[in-house]
Amino acid sequence: MEFELARALPILTRTPRVIGELLLESPEEWTAARNDPDTWSAYDVVGHLIHGERTDWMPRARRILEKGRSVPFDTFDRTAQFVESRGKSLADLLAEFAELRATNLRDLEALRLSESDMRREGMHPELGVVTMGQLLATWVAHDLNHIGQVVEVMARQYREAVGPWRAYLDILG
Amino acid sequence: MEFELARALPILTRTPRVIGELLLESPEEWTAARNDPDTWSAYDVVGHLIHGERTDWMPRARRILEKGRSVPFDTFDRTAQFVESRGKSLADLLAEFAELRATNLRDLEALRLSESDMRREGMHPELGVVTMGQLLATWVAHDLNHIGQVVEVMARQYREAVGPWRAYLDILG
Repeated sequence: MEFELARALPILTRTPRVIGELLLESPEEWTAARNDPDTWSAYDVVGHLIHGERTDWMPRARRILEKGRSVPFDTFDRTAQFVESRGKSLADLLAEFAELRATNLRDLEALRLSESDMRREGMHPELGVVTMGQLLATWVAHDLNHIGQVVEVMARQYREAVGPWRAYLDILG
Repeated sequence: MEFELARALPILTRTPRVIGELLLESPEEWTAARNDPDTWSAYDVVGHLIHGERTDWMPRARRILEKGRSVPFDTFDRTAQFVESRGKSLADLLAEFAELRATNLRDLEALRLSESDMRREGMHPELGVVTMGQLLATWVAHDLNHIGQVVEVMARQYREAVGPWRAYLDILG
């Protein structure tokens, strides 16, 4: 499917609500659980999404509009949440994510990007030349990827509890 | 994590809302999309979840209580939705799923299952002896598995659109 802003916005708009429904009233055994010490919990994922709202998507979109390929994007810190989320409850993080996302989508709409803007190019520090459309498509796929990560880490808490049904449930690994 | 009904109920209760938020206002390009002709769309998944509410989870729980291991569960039809969903809109299916789930959870609570009930055994037609606790843990993991399946099939519609970012997004395969 080609990237088209009108099709992407419904997904981006609702991700905070999807994640909120999944997590907000869930016992901490689900939301703080990890598969092993190196993987992320649902709580960690929400912190990561917040960091993306602050430093990744809209700042990079603006960089493309202002500097094109001449100034690469700032590097994204994939583990910033381990410092930034400290002392915050999951409910705090979910509210912060929802608010940042809403602001970012208002700012995105205010840019009134045209179809030709979607072909404007920027410079990713590792991946090289990328387009505005690719950046925004990645925002959507990244949301869906992390929803998938959250349900996977939650499901795996029942890897033993399901007994022989494990054979039918790919998500349990 | 051990199965405990009080920890499972919040997940089972909210799955219809999670899936509703993901899908209800999403353009059909997302909800009807498949990865290839043999995989399921989000629409197909909701039909499958409905069939589970009707024929799998609570009927099997009752079979365990009434017949123990003496009468195996009825076989579950994994493709029933391709007939049963015909002519129904996604909004119809989401409403039907939410209603069936709410009824089933009321019925489950009415059974007032004790901890020892969780060890009661039934007979799965393929997997052999299973317990009530395993059945109910599987209900939860099955929900999470299919939420994961929905976000995966949606994300994959942008496999090309994300350009070089594909390298960072496991969900795109």
